[in-house]
Amino acid sequence: MSTIGVDIGGTKIAAGVVDESGAVLARTRRTTPATDPEAIEDAVADAVAELRAEHDVTGVGVAAAGYIDASRSTVVFAPNLAWRHEPLREEVEKRVDLPVVVENDANAAAWGEFVHGGGRSARDMVLLTVGTGLGGGIVLDGELVRGTGGMAAEVGHLRVVPDGQQCGCGRTGCWEQYGSGQALVRWARSLAATDPARAARLLELAGGDPAEVTGPHVTAAAEEGDEASVELVATLGRWLGEGAASLAAVLDPGTILVGGGVSSAGALLLDPMRRAFAGALTASQHRDLPRIDRAELGNDAGMVGVAHLADRS
Amino acid sequence: MSTIGVDIGGTKIAAGVVDESGAVLARTRRTTPATDPEAIEDAVADAVAELRAEHDVTGVGVAAAGYIDASRSTVVFAPNLAWRHEPLREEVEKRVDLPVVVENDANAAAWGEFVHGGGRSARDMVLLTVGTGLGGGIVLDGELVRGTGGMAAEVGHLRVVPDGQQCGCGRTGCWEQYGSGQALVRWARSLAATDPARAARLLELAGGDPAEVTGPHVTAAAEEGDEASVELVATLGRWLGEGAASLAAVLDPGTILVGGGVSSAGALLLDPMRRAFAGALTASQHRDLPRIDRAELGNDAGMVGVAHLADRS
Amino acid sequence: MSTIGVDIGGTKIAAGVVDESGAVLARTRRTTPATDPEAIEDAVADAVAELRAEHDVTGVGVAAAGYIDASRSTVVFAPNLAWRHEPLREEVEKRVDLPVVVENDANAAAWGEFVHGGGRSARDMVLLTVGTGLGGGIVLDGELVRGTGGMAAEVGHLRVVPDGQQCGCGRTGCWEQYGSGQALVRWARSLAATDPARAARLLELAGGDPAEVTGPHVTAAAEEGDEASVELVATLGRWLGEGAASLAAVLDPGTILVGGGVSSAGALLLDPMRRAFAGALTASQHRDLPRIDRAELGNDAGMVGVAHLADRS
Amino acid sequence: MSTIGVDIGGTKIAAGVVDESGAVLARTRRTTPATDPEAIEDAVADAVAELRAEHDVTGVGVAAAGYIDASRSTVVFAPNLAWRHEPLREEVEKRVDLPVVVENDANAAAWGEFVHGGGRSARDMVLLTVGTGLGGGIVLDGELVRGTGGMAAEVGHLRVVPDGQQCGCGRTGCWEQYGSGQALVRWARSLAATDPARAARLLELAGGDPAEVTGPHVTAAAEEGDEASVELVATLGRWLGEGAASLAAVLDPGTILVGGGVSSAGALLLDPMRRAFAGALTASQHRDLPRIDRAELGNDAGMVGVAHLADRS
Repeated sequence: MSTIGVDIGGTKIAAGVVDESGAVLARTRRTTPATDPEAIEDAVADAVAELRAEHDVTGVGVAAAGYIDASRSTVVFAPNLAWRHEPLREEVEKRVDLPVVVENDANAAAWGEFVHGGGRSARDMVLLTVGTGLGGGIVLDGELVRGTGGMAAEVGHLRVVPDGQQCGCGRTGCWEQYGSGQALVRWARSLAATDPARAARLLELAGGDPAEVTGPHVTAAAEEGDEASVELVATLGRWLGEGAASLAAVLDPGTILVGGGVSSAGALLLDPMRRAFAGALTASQHRDLPRIDRAELGNDAGMVGVAHLADRS
Repeated sequence: MSTIGVDIGGTKIAAGVVDESGAVLARTRRTTPATDPEAIEDAVADAVAELRAEHDVTGVGVAAAGYIDASRSTVVFAPNLAWRHEPLREEVEKRVDLPVVVENDANAAAWGEFVHGGGRSARDMVLLTVGTGLGGGIVLDGELVRGTGGMAAEVGHLRVVPDGQQCGCGRTGCWEQYGSGQALVRWARSLAATDPARAARLLELAGGDPAEVTGPHVTAAAEEGDEASVELVATLGRWLGEGAASLAAVLDPGTILVGGGVSSAGALLLDPMRRAFAGALTASQHRDLPRIDRAELGNDAGMVGVAHLADRS
Repeated sequence: MSTIGVDIGGTKIAAGVVDESGAVLARTRRTTPATDPEAIEDAVADAVAELRAEHDVTGVGVAAAGYIDASRSTVVFAPNLAWRHEPLREEVEKRVDLPVVVENDANAAAWGEFVHGGGRSARDMVLLTVGTGLGGGIVLDGELVRGTGGMAAEVGHLRVVPDGQQCGCGRTGCWEQYGSGQALVRWARSLAATDPARAARLLELAGGDPAEVTGPHVTAAAEEGDEASVELVATLGRWLGEGAASLAAVLDPGTILVGGGVSSAGALLLDPMRRAFAGALTASQHRDLPRIDRAELGNDAGMVGVAHLADRS
Repeated sequence: MSTIGVDIGGTKIAAGVVDESGAVLARTRRTTPATDPEAIEDAVADAVAELRAEHDVTGVGVAAAGYIDASRSTVVFAPNLAWRHEPLREEVEKRVDLPVVVENDANAAAWGEFVHGGGRSARDMVLLTVGTGLGGGIVLDGELVRGTGGMAAEVGHLRVVPDGQQCGCGRTGCWEQYGSGQALVRWARSLAATDPARAARLLELAGGDPAEVTGPHVTAAAEEGDEASVELVATLGRWLGEGAASLAAVLDPGTILVGGGVSSAGALLLDPMRRAFAGALTASQHRDLPRIDRAELGNDAGMVGVAHLADRS
């Protein structure tokens, strides 16, 4: 049977009908009315109604960028949405009259990769989602790790540098400040501002203004072979590898996947990551190194994953 | 029914008959013939035979300080014992003619605390074993986390300071170098050597020689109220709390237990640990903090835990 | 005889007639036409002319916030002014027909404190100017330290945290990112955004908006006794003390003065600084600790110092 | 006229007659009676007497590895010798009946390089002495920097990693723990113990025992092209470069010299040092980089330097 997966992001809501094989049979989208809790729920219901008009489904999974409580009913806090202690499951069930499951978007994406993507053959798997921030999801022994409060897998807030770069979370030196698109952009802008000769290609792409350099500028220039950009992407890869080595000391996963927009850099990112990982992992001489690969489902991972969770619940 | 738990340490082998309630009905010990793989197995068998003479048991659990493979049969590597790729399960089964399970000692201790100790009421739990080194065991959703290669929960090798103190594992800045008895001793000896006035009580306990200061000297002096020692123990607590905050970002456990010899320092260690944990945990304002408490089973944790695993297998 | 000291800042030009005792006999000001190199020089000349109308002077000293070359004639680079390789000495001499000396503003301030301020009795002295940034000036054996390229005493760019907070200079972990007003504001805003209860007083002063918290809010709240603010100021003090300990390992000055706007916090800043300094200084048990005190001349330090240099040249 | 320079190390006393051109006309040696303060002074006097038998000299300079007070008369503390507040100048003058000057050995070496070695054409110069430890001497504007307490230029105790490697001085993360022969040996032994395949050549040189690897093994293997050793020496060079960048932010010297036993590695050490220096120096795009070169006088630097100071006093 098919289910509907809905992925609520800060700017758009993506919904799709997903079958048992993970194929997306139909899709629709809504703009996220981010400041109005009820309007988001109405938009979700509206998207679900549209998809159900053409497809028979048995349940709905909703993935949201926020802290979901352990019962997976309530959004405790969502940094970019208006929800605070919002009973999302109940509110959506009321509107769609189908069983609903709610999951954190990064967890949902990890689950999607585990069942239908790069983690299909894994038992223990970590997904690192390298976008503007650094999110993650963890599957151990075939089960999502949610933690007692539902807040597990906040891997971006592993501290990697004591007294390091200020993080939006209020602490300093979080992995997210070194292993994410925002880190890449910060380094690139700093380089462009202080060493314009070396950052010539980046400045060209950014119309001459260091403050306008973006992540896609850096990855594009790196793909062209621009030396400074290659090094910036490699630096990001190195931080990902070193942090992943700490994760692996704790979790020993056989598979580590890298998703999110920055993962489009491919080998320019993953090769330095693999080298740094191998150099930083404790007891690496006594074990098989995990596979580090790019995630496979791209932006669909959360939708596909939460649809599968809906099927399973 | 009862089972036998055997805990093989670097210097001694402790074995006991453990019943379903976790009570140790009988005990025996052997010295560890650390350099002779077969002799260790003979000693284990001998201890088991002694206990079986008086008790009916259904299986044997063996905990060992080393990397155990994912099938829990083979000791891949044991830093302080002569085993390299030793088929320990098979060797012991051959000798005792009972079903045998093998587990890493820190995992076994975590399991012991989970089923019969400070984690009885937990679902997700981390045990930190603070002895000479820093070991750990992780229980998530009621199951031990072993990892794909059986090497999970090497929490002492989470990197907490890039380019920090050299670790015996070949990397630098591992948590073990800051959150263990060896760290406490290193700091205490350094203080005694460079600021003897402040370390007067420690030097007195050590017979005047900075190099003779031990961990028990520090905890004893701290319990007496010696200011420098209280601060050293608090520093250790702070590092434990900060590292535990990184762990909690990843695992979100409801319970964190602290065992090992240094945990005898009690509140002198745990209060600074709790404060540092709360200060370092991401999103602490949006969640219930986990309980941080002393483990309950002391040195029996590994024996009790592995006996329970034998019962369950 | 008297001389005129001119201190060119990013927003205003302060000029004064200074006598041999360091007394400022007359003052005037101009707004800095920051984007027009010649206009700045005209404004300096205009201020000098105004002061000379009433006072007999033998020379003019000009302090500017920028890199001054070793011959002290040319402004190589000024972050907040339009000068690039500007022959400032020649340009001003042409306009005022008096001997002119040019000096970096932080060096001039250090010299002012050395001859007429808190360093009067010192032989070796460091001035730390803790404003938005962290500047400094060094006097050793009674002479200003300028360095071969005229760029010495950029103490704010001592690296204190590898891979630490991004610095405007293009590097990371510079002392300025931990020991300056901008650090204080960064920490305060982060606290206000993520722990509003603890930052209640700061938020009140800032009209409820974390992004509006300023350095003076923090120091004012600290002076009232607000716990969070006291701790923020103490954290700044601690970083100043730890960095100063590195400086003292290199320079062994008898006197360390703290000036700049943030120094108005007085003992709230200096006591934690002194404690951290003593704890971090190598071989502190074998030496007299330097005096750490507030600078005495406030905003006049640069003007008074560069006037004295003009007298001396 | 000639003078005698005496360099008192932990194991031997080297003395020589040095002429105005820096040439060493005659030499002698004594074993250092390290535990007997008077015996050291007797040995110095004896060496001086031997040299004077053949050479006319006007004074004696004594360099010692210890903290010398600001009046350059007294050894306040010497880590490896028995002196505590020893009036060395007076004691030697009494014995040799010539004017005596006393100087810290690293300062003396810097002065030697400045007047007769690699710093001949410099005005501002730093000497880094990379032996077992990391010492240094600073010359600014043609004068040795001694500091108010005579303890300047303890550059090895600049803190480069907060909470880094434990230092013998009682603090942590001192530059000496990363930029010295002892750091090189620590890294090499750790590699040999945990990755014997990669350290095969080092283990061969050390007779198979990781604990027997020495600094000369590493530099010899690096010169042969052994990859792991080349990288270890380069790592040391990188730390030297990064620390030197912090020093240069403070002092802006035109010349940085590298002496001490490890400097024999030459370009294998200096090239990585230069690259790291350029990458870490603030405002490097606005200035001429200092020259970084090997010191020229080798082990004679202290003797030659202190002889010159004797001539000059």
